[in-house]
Amino acid sequence: MFEFKIDKTDPSGARNGRFHTPHGIIHTPVFAPVGTLATVKAMRPVDLRDLGASLVLSNTYHLYLRPGDDLIRDLGGLHQFMGWDSPILTDSGGFQVFSLSNSRKIDQDGVTFKSHLDGSFHRFTPEKSIAIQQNLGADIIMAFDECPPPNDRAYVEESLTRTHPWLERCVAAKTRDDQALFGIVQGGIFPDLREQSARFMIDLDLPGYAIGGLAVGEEKAEMYAILDTLHPILPANKPRYLMGVGAPDDLVNGVLRGIDIFDCVMPTRIARHNSAFILGGRINLRNAKFQRDPKPIDNSCTCYTCTNFSRAYLRHLVKANEILAHILLSTHNLHFLINLMAQMREAISNGRLSQFAATFLAHYDK
Amino acid sequence: MFEFKIDKTDPSGARNGRFHTPHGIIHTPVFAPVGTLATVKAMRPVDLRDLGASLVLSNTYHLYLRPGDDLIRDLGGLHQFMGWDSPILTDSGGFQVFSLSNSRKIDQDGVTFKSHLDGSFHRFTPEKSIAIQQNLGADIIMAFDECPPPNDRAYVEESLTRTHPWLERCVAAKTRDDQALFGIVQGGIFPDLREQSARFMIDLDLPGYAIGGLAVGEEKAEMYAILDTLHPILPANKPRYLMGVGAPDDLVNGVLRGIDIFDCVMPTRIARHNSAFILGGRINLRNAKFQRDPKPIDNSCTCYTCTNFSRAYLRHLVKANEILAHILLSTHNLHFLINLMAQMREAISNGRLSQFAATFLAHYDK
Repeated sequence: MFEFKIDKTDPSGARNGRFHTPHGIIHTPVFAPVGTLATVKAMRPVDLRDLGASLVLSNTYHLYLRPGDDLIRDLGGLHQFMGWDSPILTDSGGFQVFSLSNSRKIDQDGVTFKSHLDGSFHRFTPEKSIAIQQNLGADIIMAFDECPPPNDRAYVEESLTRTHPWLERCVAAKTRDDQALFGIVQGGIFPDLREQSARFMIDLDLPGYAIGGLAVGEEKAEMYAILDTLHPILPANKPRYLMGVGAPDDLVNGVLRGIDIFDCVMPTRIARHNSAFILGGRINLRNAKFQRDPKPIDNSCTCYTCTNFSRAYLRHLVKANEILAHILLSTHNLHFLINLMAQMREAISNGRLSQFAATFLAHYDK
Repeated sequence: MFEFKIDKTDPSGARNGRFHTPHGIIHTPVFAPVGTLATVKAMRPVDLRDLGASLVLSNTYHLYLRPGDDLIRDLGGLHQFMGWDSPILTDSGGFQVFSLSNSRKIDQDGVTFKSHLDGSFHRFTPEKSIAIQQNLGADIIMAFDECPPPNDRAYVEESLTRTHPWLERCVAAKTRDDQALFGIVQGGIFPDLREQSARFMIDLDLPGYAIGGLAVGEEKAEMYAILDTLHPILPANKPRYLMGVGAPDDLVNGVLRGIDIFDCVMPTRIARHNSAFILGGRINLRNAKFQRDPKPIDNSCTCYTCTNFSRAYLRHLVKANEILAHILLSTHNLHFLINLMAQMREAISNGRLSQFAATFLAHYDK
């Protein structure tokens, strides 16, 4: 279980892999749609499968608060609850405790925080996070970590004195052997701290390594520099997961730096704000210039939305606040990222990833 | 074009028919989902097709106001605009002018009304309604009529002096031969006025006859009495459409009284209020008693929702305001009505409609 087979490695170090899980094989590099509350917003599981999604992420913090991880366990676990029998990854709740809770108190043992829903107080420890994730039953689970402000060196250093022991406690607390526990490398924007964190985790010989605390306010160049630092350090034979990153240019730059797994709410979130990915960047379908535009979002796109509907129709749906706007734009945006990953896997297998990346990035306008 | 072939007539007078349109054959009796703004709320066209929908209704009043019937014409007509290449029916705008506009002035020539969207003034006449419906390009279009308060005899009588000449003007104004124009029998709850209205329209030898002005506040018994009145009067060889009616018991009682076509927003509207049809009536998925219920909405239902998801999951989606709740409940409710019609067609072909109806209605709790 959890074997990671590498089929092809590109000169850049990017690789095509197969990660074996109890719910099937994940072909990497892969983009995982995010189903925060046990649903990828506006998408049915069958639609995700049709899009080629092989891995879905869901959030421990959110599911713990509602409907409750015990309820999901009693209903057969997260796969059965949400009707998704392919691989699932859950995060540890660490990131949300720090980003969503408006009141929290951190100590060496764990975090006490206030629910963003009703203000009630809760406490997460490494043991609690693992217990919740075992109730949920995802294939890939995450260590409980602290996600510090990335530019504050003193704070980041101190934070690692919590995140590292918490990882050891997560490893000790885990009892299910059908779940792979990944450690989360932290260290902010500081290459030496990132290396220190990575080496600590590598010594534990985990089935995979995540890179956390990026895409939280630092510059893209700083993110790529950290990936460049970690690329030669992280073991080549284990999957690497860049958490919360999903902008198209970041996916390309991540794969070039050896990343195998990505997740991000962006494709479904920008869909709810009426935006659609195109090769050149994004368009917003609310724009008046699309009022009578008979073209699809993207002429070359093969998704359901682009093969059936005009920009004029999508603009009409957006203006009328129709749910179908969310459905069709989410479908297109997820297809865009999932298809981009498929194109990169193809480019890697043909030894042409650098050319593909150069062409893509030359056209992409952040 | 617009041939109506009757394959089987039940002793009750209910019949299995095939109505030929430029976009395909409608097997009757049929329930038409409503796509008010050129979308059946929360449903993709491919999903409607998978459910077995063969006819979709859309609203002239709404599409005239936004995005505009000229825009839809310029984009290839309503079928192409909304990606639905099966039959479409548009109403005339008459009902919405009277039910949605908060300010209107009726004269013998037409109606001036205030948009419910922005308060701007507009004028519908029979000629204008037909012009809009010709721009939209539905297969079945409706005469412009007045929908009067059903219990006010004096008003209903006077109203027929408008609705009947308006029908003649609609017939005269219509120029497209790929659209079938139905007249709308009015007359409130008064059998003699209904008969008078029906006989006026039958003399025009139209391709189909609608029954309007029901399900607007009268008792169900009064509705069924009107249907009983019209059943022997309306020509057996033309399709009959009961407008805006879609409660399961009304579908059964309508078919028993010779109705061929129904439409109603109910299945998608109650879905957005978290309700689902079951054989016994309805359940509301927000109810706390479903919190840990592992059963589907309906054990015997074969829809996507019931074959994949528990009531507990649906309740979770409802509580979290997830779009997927609307999608899954709309899917189930539309399946329920479309499947009910299929069961009635089957019962008619087996000569067992009365037994089917008696069993269904005995279990159904309004």
